[in-house]
Amino acid sequence: MKKLLLVYVALIGLFMLYVYHAHFKEPVANPWDTRGLQGDLNETYMMITFQSGMDYWKRCLKGFEDAAQALNVTVEYRGAAQYDIQEQITVLEQAIAKNPAGIAISAIDPVELTDTINKAVDAGIPIVLFDSGAPDSHAHSFLGTNNYNAGMNAAYKMAELLDGEGEVAVITLPNQLNHQERTTGFKETLEAEFPAIEVIAVEDGRGDSLHSRRVAHQLLEDYPNLAGIFATEANGGVGVGDAVRLESRAGEIQIISFDTDKGTLDLVDEGIISATLAQGTWNMGYWSLTYLFHLHHGLTEPQILQTREEAPLPLYVDTGITIVTDENVDYYYAD
Amino acid sequence: MKKLLLVYVALIGLFMLYVYHAHFKEPVANPWDTRGLQGDLNETYMMITFQSGMDYWKRCLKGFEDAAQALNVTVEYRGAAQYDIQEQITVLEQAIAKNPAGIAISAIDPVELTDTINKAVDAGIPIVLFDSGAPDSHAHSFLGTNNYNAGMNAAYKMAELLDGEGEVAVITLPNQLNHQERTTGFKETLEAEFPAIEVIAVEDGRGDSLHSRRVAHQLLEDYPNLAGIFATEANGGVGVGDAVRLESRAGEIQIISFDTDKGTLDLVDEGIISATLAQGTWNMGYWSLTYLFHLHHGLTEPQILQTREEAPLPLYVDTGITIVTDENVDYYYAD
Repeated sequence: MKKLLLVYVALIGLFMLYVYHAHFKEPVANPWDTRGLQGDLNETYMMITFQSGMDYWKRCLKGFEDAAQALNVTVEYRGAAQYDIQEQITVLEQAIAKNPAGIAISAIDPVELTDTINKAVDAGIPIVLFDSGAPDSHAHSFLGTNNYNAGMNAAYKMAELLDGEGEVAVITLPNQLNHQERTTGFKETLEAEFPAIEVIAVEDGRGDSLHSRRVAHQLLEDYPNLAGIFATEANGGVGVGDAVRLESRAGEIQIISFDTDKGTLDLVDEGIISATLAQGTWNMGYWSLTYLFHLHHGLTEPQILQTREEAPLPLYVDTGITIVTDENVDYYYAD
Repeated sequence: MKKLLLVYVALIGLFMLYVYHAHFKEPVANPWDTRGLQGDLNETYMMITFQSGMDYWKRCLKGFEDAAQALNVTVEYRGAAQYDIQEQITVLEQAIAKNPAGIAISAIDPVELTDTINKAVDAGIPIVLFDSGAPDSHAHSFLGTNNYNAGMNAAYKMAELLDGEGEVAVITLPNQLNHQERTTGFKETLEAEFPAIEVIAVEDGRGDSLHSRRVAHQLLEDYPNLAGIFATEANGGVGVGDAVRLESRAGEIQIISFDTDKGTLDLVDEGIISATLAQGTWNMGYWSLTYLFHLHHGLTEPQILQTREEAPLPLYVDTGITIVTDENVDYYYAD
């Protein structure tokens, strides 16, 4: 009887030990082992933008968060509320002071942020740029839209909409590099591939829907055969759409716009805007976090001397363009 | 006594159940959960090249293998032994027949492989291109060197070596697109940034070291003030190096070459070649596998309509360039 009791106690003890062992053996975060790529919830990666309330950033942040969830790490979002260089510099300084596992930043200006970005690099904080770059900084990578290719995509779509012939115009921001590239890609592709389509005007829409509407009215008056307009940014596209609707010429004028804010999507849904170009914002966020994770964990190319001339990560990622028409517009409302 | 025995039996039963449960509850490969990104060793990802014996592919495969280890999946390497389009098509057909989790392929020809690549896409097999693309195929992404930027890097390095002035020549393959881009990037950067450096000749080296050596001899004779030569591919660089050594003009003529095969590294080590441009081959392999893994597991952008116009992954990744000189050449021998 006593012997049985001993076995009984021993068994209970063994059972409790086993339960204890099984429950407290937490997985250790060593990403090179065969348990897969995973980090630690104490690792915080920060995303920093400007005009932080803008719809545009939502999908960037969603991609950033999805990657963080997959890799079991933590995310913080910070942004300058305004379109203000000094404010974004301050936000970045504050982020550096917190010594995060990595920073992804969209630069409000290609030059003014360079010193502060380099300060992060010098402090050993992984930093990548997305959407808007700072080419002379020491950031480890840039992930964004190839604007020349975006313009090229617009040209192919315009040619499809016009059956390869007609007069078209561009409404753009002639002083901003990304918009110059979109315009050049559009024009050069039409010239090379669709000689029967003529770009008869390139106008400044000032990034403002009211001004762009006035410009579009003038274009419709000056060029009675105008068949298409490419607006290189969203406010311009909304302005052009308003002008075409007011003059009851929807369907006659093919409009191609840029980005997927609600105003633009509504005009696509109504059939006023024929197509709009969605940037790969989710991919910008997802792969920014993935790159920062790899830098933080030292999972970049082994055996490479770490000097300024070395490239531990791909330097440039073209996150691509998706063409949104009334056929797939519903998917973009879901954001 | 009987009651105690019952308790005893019940406890043993419970214990065995627990052990059984704990041991057979293997982790399920669901990469979105918090256990990190991980696959299954039964998932096989294939890398396919041409001229499979070439040193150049070793670091691509190393990157592919390192990513596979991190993600706990399996890798197979296949290649056409020769520089033979038909053979590579056959190898790709055989790979498709095995229904792997993904295929990364470097296309021997930008056009001839397109149909077979599309066959893989239509069969639902994720496929990405690396190093050499097939732009009209439906492959999900291309990861490789931006050759224009590579030429630009060569220009900056040449300007540094020549203190911003002197006569230079280019030895290249004038009929191959990637080499045209390297030459254009080199020339345009010098023209724009370093007007005191003049490109006095662009010659065909035929990708052959003996022919390139003869061309270099002729250049040295024709242009007594020649101060630098940029060879856009490795055999050309070795030929130029041989010519400069034979004429005992090492140190006088700055040579910049391409890639990191042993012959080139030896000439860098000897000080005959001043610098050579290493392509981001490890990154090509590493991120190719990572992209295929994401496609196989459906970890690309959610809520997007999967049509031909959609871009689930970044379309183009510039894997960058590293400048190799006698200061860091040892790291490249290690490969």
